Amino acid sequence: MTILNSEKVFRDPILGFIHVDNSIILDLINSHEMQRLRRIKHLGVANLVFHGGEQSRFQHSLGVYEISRRMITALDHHEKFDYEQDWDHKNDLLVQAAALLHDVGHGAYSHTFEHLFNTIHEQFTQKIIVDPNTEVNAILKTVSADFPAKVAAVIGKSYPDKRVVQIVSSQLDADRMDYLLRDAYYTGAEYGRYDIERILRLMRPVKDGFVFDIAGVHSIEDYVISRYQMYLQVYFHPVSRGMEVVLENLLKRAQVLFDKNPNDPIFFDLIKPIFALKNDIDLKDYIALDDSVFNTAFNVWQNVDDPILSDLSKRFLDRKPLKSIVLNDKTRPLIDHLKAKIQARAFDPEYYTGENDATDLPYESYSPKTGEEGIKFIYPDGKQAELSQLSPLVEAINGKKSIDRRFFFPRELLDDAEVNALYLKYKKTY
Amino acid sequence: MTILNSEKVFRDPILGFIHVDNSIILDLINSHEMQRLRRIKHLGVANLVFHGGEQSRFQHSLGVYEISRRMITALDHHEKFDYEQDWDHKNDLLVQAAALLHDVGHGAYSHTFEHLFNTIHEQFTQKIIVDPNTEVNAILKTVSADFPAKVAAVIGKSYPDKRVVQIVSSQLDADRMDYLLRDAYYTGAEYGRYDIERILRLMRPVKDGFVFDIAGVHSIEDYVISRYQMYLQVYFHPVSRGMEVVLENLLKRAQVLFDKNPNDPIFFDLIKPIFALKNDIDLKDYIALDDSVFNTAFNVWQNVDDPILSDLSKRFLDRKPLKSIVLNDKTRPLIDHLKAKIQARAFDPEYYTGENDATDLPYESYSPKTGEEGIKFIYPDGKQAELSQLSPLVEAINGKKSIDRRFFFPRELLDDAEVNALYLKYKKTY
Amino acid sequence: MTILNSEKVFRDPILGFIHVDNSIILDLINSHEMQRLRRIKHLGVANLVFHGGEQSRFQHSLGVYEISRRMITALDHHEKFDYEQDWDHKNDLLVQAAALLHDVGHGAYSHTFEHLFNTIHEQFTQKIIVDPNTEVNAILKTVSADFPAKVAAVIGKSYPDKRVVQIVSSQLDADRMDYLLRDAYYTGAEYGRYDIERILRLMRPVKDGFVFDIAGVHSIEDYVISRYQMYLQVYFHPVSRGMEVVLENLLKRAQVLFDKNPNDPIFFDLIKPIFALKNDIDLKDYIALDDSVFNTAFNVWQNVDDPILSDLSKRFLDRKPLKSIVLNDKTRPLIDHLKAKIQARAFDPEYYTGENDATDLPYESYSPKTGEEGIKFIYPDGKQAELSQLSPLVEAINGKKSIDRRFFFPRELLDDAEVNALYLKYKKTY
Amino acid sequence: MTILNSEKVFRDPILGFIHVDNSIILDLINSHEMQRLRRIKHLGVANLVFHGGEQSRFQHSLGVYEISRRMITALDHHEKFDYEQDWDHKNDLLVQAAALLHDVGHGAYSHTFEHLFNTIHEQFTQKIIVDPNTEVNAILKTVSADFPAKVAAVIGKSYPDKRVVQIVSSQLDADRMDYLLRDAYYTGAEYGRYDIERILRLMRPVKDGFVFDIAGVHSIEDYVISRYQMYLQVYFHPVSRGMEVVLENLLKRAQVLFDKNPNDPIFFDLIKPIFALKNDIDLKDYIALDDSVFNTAFNVWQNVDDPILSDLSKRFLDRKPLKSIVLNDKTRPLIDHLKAKIQARAFDPEYYTGENDATDLPYESYSPKTGEEGIKFIYPDGKQAELSQLSPLVEAINGKKSIDRRFFFPRELLDDAEVNALYLKYKKTY
Repeated sequence: MTILNSEKVFRDPILGFIHVDNSIILDLINSHEMQRLRRIKHLGVANLVFHGGEQSRFQHSLGVYEISRRMITALDHHEKFDYEQDWDHKNDLLVQAAALLHDVGHGAYSHTFEHLFNTIHEQFTQKIIVDPNTEVNAILKTVSADFPAKVAAVIGKSYPDKRVVQIVSSQLDADRMDYLLRDAYYTGAEYGRYDIERILRLMRPVKDGFVFDIAGVHSIEDYVISRYQMYLQVYFHPVSRGMEVVLENLLKRAQVLFDKNPNDPIFFDLIKPIFALKNDIDLKDYIALDDSVFNTAFNVWQNVDDPILSDLSKRFLDRKPLKSIVLNDKTRPLIDHLKAKIQARAFDPEYYTGENDATDLPYESYSPKTGEEGIKFIYPDGKQAELSQLSPLVEAINGKKSIDRRFFFPRELLDDAEVNALYLKYKKTY
Repeated sequence: MTILNSEKVFRDPILGFIHVDNSIILDLINSHEMQRLRRIKHLGVANLVFHGGEQSRFQHSLGVYEISRRMITALDHHEKFDYEQDWDHKNDLLVQAAALLHDVGHGAYSHTFEHLFNTIHEQFTQKIIVDPNTEVNAILKTVSADFPAKVAAVIGKSYPDKRVVQIVSSQLDADRMDYLLRDAYYTGAEYGRYDIERILRLMRPVKDGFVFDIAGVHSIEDYVISRYQMYLQVYFHPVSRGMEVVLENLLKRAQVLFDKNPNDPIFFDLIKPIFALKNDIDLKDYIALDDSVFNTAFNVWQNVDDPILSDLSKRFLDRKPLKSIVLNDKTRPLIDHLKAKIQARAFDPEYYTGENDATDLPYESYSPKTGEEGIKFIYPDGKQAELSQLSPLVEAINGKKSIDRRFFFPRELLDDAEVNALYLKYKKTY
Repeated sequence: MTILNSEKVFRDPILGFIHVDNSIILDLINSHEMQRLRRIKHLGVANLVFHGGEQSRFQHSLGVYEISRRMITALDHHEKFDYEQDWDHKNDLLVQAAALLHDVGHGAYSHTFEHLFNTIHEQFTQKIIVDPNTEVNAILKTVSADFPAKVAAVIGKSYPDKRVVQIVSSQLDADRMDYLLRDAYYTGAEYGRYDIERILRLMRPVKDGFVFDIAGVHSIEDYVISRYQMYLQVYFHPVSRGMEVVLENLLKRAQVLFDKNPNDPIFFDLIKPIFALKNDIDLKDYIALDDSVFNTAFNVWQNVDDPILSDLSKRFLDRKPLKSIVLNDKTRPLIDHLKAKIQARAFDPEYYTGENDATDLPYESYSPKTGEEGIKFIYPDGKQAELSQLSPLVEAINGKKSIDRRFFFPRELLDDAEVNALYLKYKKTY
Repeated sequence: MTILNSEKVFRDPILGFIHVDNSIILDLINSHEMQRLRRIKHLGVANLVFHGGEQSRFQHSLGVYEISRRMITALDHHEKFDYEQDWDHKNDLLVQAAALLHDVGHGAYSHTFEHLFNTIHEQFTQKIIVDPNTEVNAILKTVSADFPAKVAAVIGKSYPDKRVVQIVSSQLDADRMDYLLRDAYYTGAEYGRYDIERILRLMRPVKDGFVFDIAGVHSIEDYVISRYQMYLQVYFHPVSRGMEVVLENLLKRAQVLFDKNPNDPIFFDLIKPIFALKNDIDLKDYIALDDSVFNTAFNVWQNVDDPILSDLSKRFLDRKPLKSIVLNDKTRPLIDHLKAKIQARAFDPEYYTGENDATDLPYESYSPKTGEEGIKFIYPDGKQAELSQLSPLVEAINGKKSIDRRFFFPRELLDDAEVNALYLKYKKTY
């Protein structure tokens, strides 16, 4: 029996308390693989711009679990309509475990990491859940032999019950609901707030999914707009991305040096496997990687002989972002000229420049690619309507990718009058 | 000239914005030594209990700077009384630099660190400021040759102008004012809140210090009580301390192994100097230490041959705190018996038990040791009175040390009925 | 059947949502007598000092209901101990109805009102509940013939089940829990906040009452201190009381004029009965009185021939408080002299001065008068302890009445040098 | 000299503190005409839906003053650009007085009031400022003989300096900035929040107006969207409007009765002039009207012989809103049929039904009617761009009136199956 005789709570500044009354959930939280997420920042390098944004993936995972738990609880506390198809509480533990574990395979500084090492964190999440050598797997198997596979399927979106999947992955899932609130709270950005309590109250279970009572149109419009604004203002921030380019170039340089001399002692045992094997890295070695290991590598590397690796490591640790201009029809033709100037200043453009695209698709009424549908509302008579038909604001961004494409270069170039003029014209800081 | 042509701001979730209009302050923030504080958690291991509490010493330092700036600004915006001795704005930069740098020498996991390695972070703060090899020192010297020494003197409380010192170190200084608000915000504890805006409005400069308008008695009483409650509820938390004892024992074990074999490769280059030289460590090596380096050491050590070091490292990374009972007249005589039981279970008491005292002196109307005085209030006619004479609540805790002394042991012992009974009786979780 | 098929919610800025799932509660909220409370300010005249404090008794009543509902709900969501005596949910509606109605008989500007007219609002609350002519009574009788009497007994503290009474009236009841949070929110005072969610989680039902898990000592200490501070800083505010004295003198003058000529048309039909009959006023006439009726009376009276009534009405509407000094051994002997001066300035001391005591007993470990006990905590083994034995802060204020006694006089006197000096010395604004 | 020797502050839950350092402002706040605004609710009847929304026009006026003060102060605290034309601080008092007084002529329940009595509150605001018999006028004249006329001109938008006008009236003025935050705080709606501190920081004075630094596009987009959402969710709420229709019909009935018999004693002296003279009412009589006078009238009228006036008064005081359906091509043709049904139930459609339009123009890039321009942004090189060109969200609502047109009827009709079906289909509660 997995019900705890005493509900356990964790104080959370965003959600008040995280409530746990199932020993499986408690054991998962205490597992080796979940505790690792304490040492991985949720926002990657964004804390270098928003100094408050130092929250871990661990606390985000607790939040996603808690919101999934509240969703399920809320389903029992409202008027029942004929159109409803009741939620089967047999699925509660499955949903909550999937919500808690959805990010368990995330890597350190994952955007850059995955791009550079061709790793896919979703694959590692699946492995951690189904690999018989992990603590997570052992805990899940105490439920049933096929429980790990079920949890993995929910996270992988292949689980047959679409409603179970939708709580963990959709355009209004517990994951997004948590990170918007949490990132807003920690960064201090006002944009991410929305009325979660009202949204949870208006969720209705129907066949194959969840819809929302028509009364909730504006609350959910507000959530979609909040998300859109967080992307543009926080997640796309050009200074964060100037740090990401430093990080990417630094790891690229390390890879080149590693490929030349894999036994160079600057690649200590914990860091070596990822350079050697990339996506084929052993699961155990992957799990050993966290922000601290990378930071320690940069700490070591700032003193190595290679001047590029050393300089970039120092720039990363001391927060010296590359500067940027937007790439468009006017600036694209100037890039080669700019690179020549950069080279003339003895900066290797391979390691001191970069292009970086920030893209987001804020809302899609229907995704031709995945077949995923938009957020649906229901009238008392059972008729449904999709959000972009009801909200002119959401219609304005429906299906439109937000793209911010930039060229990054060393700030030292700003003392060149031509570059400086270009920068002032095209830095575009909104 | 050091005034920036454009005020620079940093979004802060607690204070709204941090405002910087002096290029010296901006350069100090961007220095190597200050940026290091981004990688040191302000609360040490308390984030292992309060999962939100992951804020860095860097952001706390920005907060202390900002509060010192607001204090100085507020002095110009109120009724002038005959008793006032005006603040000399020539001191502004000195105060703000000292506030920003007051923690620059802090170590990683500093409670445990200092205890074990006999280091004193205040000494490293002084060194970083006056050592000609640091970036901080170079920046400060652009003000004047003696400016580093002045800043160091303010932080070291030896600066002759007592008012300058009081803003940075006193019973109501910018340091405490920031950490209470910040720790409350991130941990989610309600206790740390108080009315900072009102307190700043009521601060009055007099000869040799600052006093507060008599109208502020209850606001400041509330601040003192808030601080008292944060200590008892957050800073003294027995589970944090159960993790601190794990950390301490783990480092103690590492020291023993290092002393046996200083060339053991488990002591990689970054971590070696602190075990070898302790307080005599080179400044450069000290500055290279941060939370990441220690976490990486534990990451390495969880796989070493020594079973104690390996096990304790794993316990620390996976958050397995020792359990505890309070030490008092009833339990003290039982400790030897308890240790015997622990030993019988093959846990070496040297590394699997510990005593830990949490103490705080919440308020002192007068410190016989340092001569430091309590918080003073002033009436319109210039008569002064000290807080504990005006507030029965503060009088109740005045000069009384809060002490919580505990004995820690492995949770595995809780399956022993006798230990479990003792634990239930003496765990005392308030 | 009284369960609503759809839970009804009211958006509340302090508690998020007020949840109603019982039609009796919904009907009571919609009743004539409850809706009247929308037109009575909770803080009487304190909004004249804290301009945000305009909340009505109606919203406070909803809040008390909601907290009582959460208390009862929370009892089901925690570890069960041997010492517990389970809460009988048959009492839920009784508790919630009593919580909602506890203030239904409150008068407008009730402090002054009751003092002057010798009315006791508790008696009118009882009458409204048991009188067969009220809507409230009719609704309650649909539950059972004796339900009105039961609700009245709970509010009157004579109901035999002490636990039911304790939720509505005790040192930690839903009433106090709501008004602290609500008054703090609207006035903007920081003091009233405390951790309500944690307190509700730690409440335990035992024989004859509720106790709290020992883990909650500091949360409840914080609540008691918050209440103490709200009294001293908000409820005792000398400027509010300067307005109360104006109000009291103005009503006193009106009574004198009424007694001379009860048919004077300045006493319009709505206002007449209270001057004529005082506590013997008909229930219907009492229920017709609200803040608006009194404000309209003052509006009329500012233009009447009687110069005192006219002037005091104008002072009240235009917020011209009397000034005050504290009454103590030093000032008491000067009052006659002061009154002579006031008279010399053609202000009748009868109507332009006043004494006003603000008193509060912040906490009592045991009340010899009522036999009521303090707040109790329970250890896992069932042993109990009382709050003041566990908290030195609470011990410091235990059983000690806070008293602030003042003499009020017209601000015009401040241009007299002697009075002004006295005022500056004894206004004591903390 | 008008500078106070001591800054006076008012605690405000939304803005922290209201700061006053000019005695003219303090005297205006204390004037008879401003204090009247304490007795007029800012949201009219919306507190009958959002029970927290009981804030007065008085506190809103303080807030508008404070925001205007902060705007002016912020102009001095940022980088100076070549394109700027410095703000002349000689205008400070003029702006602040206009901001404080902008609503001083507002009537009680003003939407309904103005519609019914053909009064225009803006005219009364002008009169109060320029009429030599008001306290406000006397205070303003102490500045200069023409100061009242100048203040009136700013509020009336005829003042020649467009920048002065823009702070008080524009699409991003201190008035809107305050009411969004304040209404959100009091009602508990999440929508009204936006980042006021950042917006104030980015305001730049140019010739003929204020523009915003390009960095502020998303902060101001968020403000515009917040305003749009507050209109749809709070200000347009169909239940508030159901109460407004009750109020309107009730006053319409009273007018009919008054016209028949102007000496009927149910029209007591304070309420009579508005029925008799409407927009020609004496200023003194107008100023005597507040929410309390109307509430008292309804209190009296609930007991009069006329069954319609009596019933509607009771419905208003006891909060019994009319129900509604949206008016559109489908429902418009059914209204006559519906009215016949209503009449058949003995409800006079003249007094028991009503049409009510809620309209808002959320943003206009250019108003052909007034020539008023949209919100402009400025690039470092001085180039300007208008908000709707920069934000697809604002473009989506630019120039598009939000309209919600409804037909209201007695809730008693809902027991008619046909009406009920119509209601469920067309109540449209988002």
